[in-house]
Amino acid sequence: MKPAPLYVVGLGPGDAACLTPQARGALARAQCIAGYHLYLELAPPELLHGKTIIATGMRHEKERCAAAVEASLAGQETALVCAGDPGVYALAGLTLELLESRGLLAVVPFSVVPGVPALCAAAALLGAPLTHDFACISLSDLLTPRNIIEKRLAAALEADFVCVLYNPRSKGRPHLLTGALEKARLFRRPECPVGLVRKAFRLGQNVCVQELSRFDATQADMLSLLIIGNNESRSLGRYMLTPRGYRIDT
Amino acid sequence: MKPAPLYVVGLGPGDAACLTPQARGALARAQCIAGYHLYLELAPPELLHGKTIIATGMRHEKERCAAAVEASLAGQETALVCAGDPGVYALAGLTLELLESRGLLAVVPFSVVPGVPALCAAAALLGAPLTHDFACISLSDLLTPRNIIEKRLAAALEADFVCVLYNPRSKGRPHLLTGALEKARLFRRPECPVGLVRKAFRLGQNVCVQELSRFDATQADMLSLLIIGNNESRSLGRYMLTPRGYRIDT
Repeated sequence: MKPAPLYVVGLGPGDAACLTPQARGALARAQCIAGYHLYLELAPPELLHGKTIIATGMRHEKERCAAAVEASLAGQETALVCAGDPGVYALAGLTLELLESRGLLAVVPFSVVPGVPALCAAAALLGAPLTHDFACISLSDLLTPRNIIEKRLAAALEADFVCVLYNPRSKGRPHLLTGALEKARLFRRPECPVGLVRKAFRLGQNVCVQELSRFDATQADMLSLLIIGNNESRSLGRYMLTPRGYRIDT
Repeated sequence: MKPAPLYVVGLGPGDAACLTPQARGALARAQCIAGYHLYLELAPPELLHGKTIIATGMRHEKERCAAAVEASLAGQETALVCAGDPGVYALAGLTLELLESRGLLAVVPFSVVPGVPALCAAAALLGAPLTHDFACISLSDLLTPRNIIEKRLAAALEADFVCVLYNPRSKGRPHLLTGALEKARLFRRPECPVGLVRKAFRLGQNVCVQELSRFDATQADMLSLLIIGNNESRSLGRYMLTPRGYRIDT
């Protein structure tokens, strides 16, 4: 049996209007579609109909990738779906690692189909928070030691990067975000805007910009993305803006 | 005259297969389309046909945004196009600033339509270089003082971020990239992979992964994006991988 193409596909934030034709095409061609069950719900239902579906739960990333590799080896064209972009805290990497460990890198036709990442979806809804240099940090300590997370966050704040925080707060880990905001207050003005976007471009979307000094960490959860401005960021009505250095003559 | 909607639209890397339906819809609805002339060439020609087109040259960003705002004020539904995502080193910010300076924030219906950013397009072609925390830095010193660029790069390298370099090298500024690579050699192993992607998903696309110790800076230009791995990144055949911390049992 000749292995069939294996695509790791970015669904973007979730609305079908944000799904690229390239991603839609990969889903349409695939005979097997694998993914975290909540992400499969973001895919257009008509593209799942009649296909082999491999739905797995949270923290079952290895099983999901392994099942997708097996399907490809069995000759089924396979799409492994990720929310946002497959390269940003998602499964492009783990799939490559699995292919390597099994000696399949040159055997399975592998490709990554990019998507609109959560950071760009959130930024679009906030206005323009990312217009200058930014750092992207996941606060999840499941796979990364806390001291590394804290070191990176401190370095990014000190060097005045806009800071994008993925996985900002989970029930089992409420304090990392509190600590991150305390750290931010050491390096940013009290009025520095913090943008919170929950369920960008999805039902129940919520967008808000608050001052760092007043930001309430308990609003954030694992469906949220947080953007802390740099020292020039400011709020503009309901928007958040990080200027890039243009001179605006009024 | 009632101002018409003004969209700042991300075209993604350039191939129509990477243009979201949301972005396509905004271009289709727009009566006026403004953009850097090379970016207008990335938009599907049938969506430009019969429209008012405002094409401006490099470094004319303010004129471009101002003309788009004028068109909106004149009642023309207007799309201001950007390559990649409009929030990443692009015109979402400048447009908001112009609206603010003219007191038009509550007058012009403004929105940002996200796109697949160059960093995700490049990452997809390289495999999985971004799977862990990363920092995004523009090496252009037109709008940012060199000492700030250098400080941010040093901080990001020291804290072991994957480093994404936009605008890595121009004819007038060939030495900033050379200096950046020298700095990287202080913080990374000689075999740390550096990915270079030129014209992602466009005619003339070029993708390569080289060891940091051997990386030739002269390959890079303003159409390239460079990704320097972290201390765990490695090359895997033609791919570049930054692992996230999963245990792979072979």
